[in-house]
Amino acid sequence: MTWRSHNGIPIHVLAQAVQGQLSGPGEVMITGVSSLEGATSGDLAFVAKPNLVQQARRSKAGALIVAQPLPGEQRPQIVVSNPLYAFAVIASRYFTPPPPARGIASEAVFGSDVCIGPEVSIGPFVTLGDRARIGARVTLYPGVYLGEDTVVGDDTVLYPHVTVLRGCVIGARVTIHAGTVIGSDGFGYVQHQGKHQKIPQLGNVVIEDDVELGAHVTVDRATFGSTIVKRGTKVDNQVQIAHNVVVGEDCILVAQVGIAGSTTLGHHVMIGGQAGLVDHLHIGDFAKIAAGSGVTSHVSSGQIVGGRPAVDHATWLKSQVLVHKLPEMRKELRELRARLDQLEEQLAASAKKKA
Amino acid sequence: MTWRSHNGIPIHVLAQAVQGQLSGPGEVMITGVSSLEGATSGDLAFVAKPNLVQQARRSKAGALIVAQPLPGEQRPQIVVSNPLYAFAVIASRYFTPPPPARGIASEAVFGSDVCIGPEVSIGPFVTLGDRARIGARVTLYPGVYLGEDTVVGDDTVLYPHVTVLRGCVIGARVTIHAGTVIGSDGFGYVQHQGKHQKIPQLGNVVIEDDVELGAHVTVDRATFGSTIVKRGTKVDNQVQIAHNVVVGEDCILVAQVGIAGSTTLGHHVMIGGQAGLVDHLHIGDFAKIAAGSGVTSHVSSGQIVGGRPAVDHATWLKSQVLVHKLPEMRKELRELRARLDQLEEQLAASAKKKA
Amino acid sequence: MTWRSHNGIPIHVLAQAVQGQLSGPGEVMITGVSSLEGATSGDLAFVAKPNLVQQARRSKAGALIVAQPLPGEQRPQIVVSNPLYAFAVIASRYFTPPPPARGIASEAVFGSDVCIGPEVSIGPFVTLGDRARIGARVTLYPGVYLGEDTVVGDDTVLYPHVTVLRGCVIGARVTIHAGTVIGSDGFGYVQHQGKHQKIPQLGNVVIEDDVELGAHVTVDRATFGSTIVKRGTKVDNQVQIAHNVVVGEDCILVAQVGIAGSTTLGHHVMIGGQAGLVDHLHIGDFAKIAAGSGVTSHVSSGQIVGGRPAVDHATWLKSQVLVHKLPEMRKELRELRARLDQLEEQLAASAKKKA
Repeated sequence: MTWRSHNGIPIHVLAQAVQGQLSGPGEVMITGVSSLEGATSGDLAFVAKPNLVQQARRSKAGALIVAQPLPGEQRPQIVVSNPLYAFAVIASRYFTPPPPARGIASEAVFGSDVCIGPEVSIGPFVTLGDRARIGARVTLYPGVYLGEDTVVGDDTVLYPHVTVLRGCVIGARVTIHAGTVIGSDGFGYVQHQGKHQKIPQLGNVVIEDDVELGAHVTVDRATFGSTIVKRGTKVDNQVQIAHNVVVGEDCILVAQVGIAGSTTLGHHVMIGGQAGLVDHLHIGDFAKIAAGSGVTSHVSSGQIVGGRPAVDHATWLKSQVLVHKLPEMRKELRELRARLDQLEEQLAASAKKKA
Repeated sequence: MTWRSHNGIPIHVLAQAVQGQLSGPGEVMITGVSSLEGATSGDLAFVAKPNLVQQARRSKAGALIVAQPLPGEQRPQIVVSNPLYAFAVIASRYFTPPPPARGIASEAVFGSDVCIGPEVSIGPFVTLGDRARIGARVTLYPGVYLGEDTVVGDDTVLYPHVTVLRGCVIGARVTIHAGTVIGSDGFGYVQHQGKHQKIPQLGNVVIEDDVELGAHVTVDRATFGSTIVKRGTKVDNQVQIAHNVVVGEDCILVAQVGIAGSTTLGHHVMIGGQAGLVDHLHIGDFAKIAAGSGVTSHVSSGQIVGGRPAVDHATWLKSQVLVHKLPEMRKELRELRARLDQLEEQLAASAKKKA
Repeated sequence: MTWRSHNGIPIHVLAQAVQGQLSGPGEVMITGVSSLEGATSGDLAFVAKPNLVQQARRSKAGALIVAQPLPGEQRPQIVVSNPLYAFAVIASRYFTPPPPARGIASEAVFGSDVCIGPEVSIGPFVTLGDRARIGARVTLYPGVYLGEDTVVGDDTVLYPHVTVLRGCVIGARVTIHAGTVIGSDGFGYVQHQGKHQKIPQLGNVVIEDDVELGAHVTVDRATFGSTIVKRGTKVDNQVQIAHNVVVGEDCILVAQVGIAGSTTLGHHVMIGGQAGLVDHLHIGDFAKIAAGSGVTSHVSSGQIVGGRPAVDHATWLKSQVLVHKLPEMRKELRELRARLDQLEEQLAASAKKKA
């Protein structure tokens, strides 16, 4: 199943929206977007790579977005430098499902002194704590909980059962998927006579503008100050971000990543799925951390690391190949020893003979 | 604590239910099922392995399920080829807690044109979106959210706070544990001038019949088409299934597994806990992936793999043992070099002498 | 942002509360607690380590908790043996946000025969199943679900959307963060003719006194008997605890840890983030498991293990260093072989010559 709009848009409007050059008829109506395989005649599809040209020829799509116009093609083509990007822009603007109806469900419960912007959509079973402030056109799906003194910026969407606890701040145009928890207590204790005494977690969480957080992400509040996810960063499902972590701008954190307390990331850092970072590290701008890595030391800007514990990625790949040559290496070591034993014996014998 | 029924069932009825041969008195009433250790006189317990016979003798259970009748045993015994299987069938049919009362709570909120089968149980704070369709005898625990155009098949149970988003389809006799999210957006972006532009996720999720999903599982909707979990597959807690993944029939996915986008699994695949699979792989039927593995290449049918990156499991086990022999190997290498140095010196000296 | 109280407390009261020695003026009013960097003039801050003395000098904090009094310091100082512990005690008692207002929201739904202690706080959209019993001063945030026959002890706090299923028992002074699920079914099946037959999970979960569980933790109910987390244990976010696991007293389980079925932990066990433990193991008292480990065999009391599969931690660290020396070792091996080849040739030639 792929969602489709019912109202067509003329192809020339779509071409203009991405400043693409239109080749072919401009009045064809587009009613949906799709992959090459799944497309039907009303659909616009994209040719992401040159090696997909044959597939594009066979596709039933009514129109194509391409980097190079396909010669002899009868269908309209939008020519742009980055077809996937143009596709994403067109799909986002014209072919996504309509947002939930505006209005406030009678089954929502509000504390005192809440402040609610215009044109919001607040579903049933939503709770707003005292002094919560939500901006214009915010969407709160059913079951969302906003604690006291929370702030949610304009055009932000919180999916069902998202929990934002006391004092946390969510920016504008943020999307948070279902079940994610913002502002649970950081994991801090001090041992005293064999017991763990809780260190109160008195800070908050700040999620800046244009961030997207997946489903079941957890972002803990800071001990003091703020745990921060900066502008434009995208976080996949089931990621754990501990207290006082700072994630820089435009980072990518893939599913099931865990970042321990007070570690800071620069901007444009990419972390592969299931990687873990210990506490109090700094990861430089544009660094890349391979999936499944265990990072235990600082990572420089632009560095690529992998492995548990993580080292330079190229080094790691080389070592991993050799690990599986260990049986062979050990065999060789034994052979060399045997040969050496024999040589030594031989020499000793010959020395004796001479003597 | 172990749950017990209050209404006894005669042992001969239970024997018949699993086509077992009954040895001993047939009118004994059974009021519960239990392990050998925990059983009391009204309980039926099972002897899973031959080495548990002594424990069975000592058990206070009132009756036993066995593969071989225990000689001289006074208690009734149900003799079957697979005692654990017979036990599971009897326990499922006769000794599980009653389902929640049928009916629809007045605190549930329904959109327009919803379609609800007979004998459902819908708890308080449930939300059904427009055009949601739910089958006969479905149980929706409190706080369940079903988005618009969702479908839930007959006899399916959704535990508290399960979220099924727009357009997703859940089969019949499916169980989904608390907090699980079906249909969150796939994690897809295209970079443009240093920013991450979202690729709209327009597909859905299909969970086929007889699937069980644990608590806090996340299954992302497809970019186009469907993310699919096929008939009979069982998924443990906190598993992440990315967009466009296809999980085949009768698979087992243990807790905290992560499967990246577009990877497909055949049927009867088993994946151990915390394993991760990168995107666009194919895992063949009956393949086994060891716990904690990081799979970065295709896996053939019936293959067993392990390690990060995953290789043939036997190879991996062998290498892992040798890794810890590395200090010893290095020491040996140094010794060989020293001996070789000495030999060469000796030979050079003797050559010089001769000269 | 750091939370601050509006009502000041005289410093001598705080000193007394932790049996600290007060140096300097005793009537200074303290209105908050903070880190050295973030402190303002009304704040009490702590000097956790001797090397922070310079930072303490520069800090704007109005008063300090110290292990050694800073000479020549004008500000009041509380002198104690463990400043962080004293700080945690003072912050917990005097400077944490007030708990939610007492009372029962009209939007909560109760089953029959529930039993509710005095001075509770029950938020909107809370569901209590039949015969649920909750103690004095319990706080149930919005959206909490307590199944039938559940028990919650005095002074316990359950954050939004926490789910406690049928028959599970939560102790006194327990804190459970948002979204956590207690009592989902254990993951147990028996294969029969290629299908997975569910083994009913008839036990429960017991969370003892003074436990804290993070957000999105999952604790499965036992097949028979109880899955248990014992007194004083602290569990971070996204940890998975399978059926029939027993976690001992005063353990620390860091984020994203997974523990498979029937594994038991002694007391004071510490497990680093993302570690995984297979089923049916025993981990001794005071054992430590490094972050990211994969534990596949029993661990003795006091032992420290690491790696996948986990071995003695010192052994593992040594091997990991050498893994990255493998390219060098292989090169050396080849050089030795070449030298040996040459020696053998040389000797053979000289032997031939002699002959």
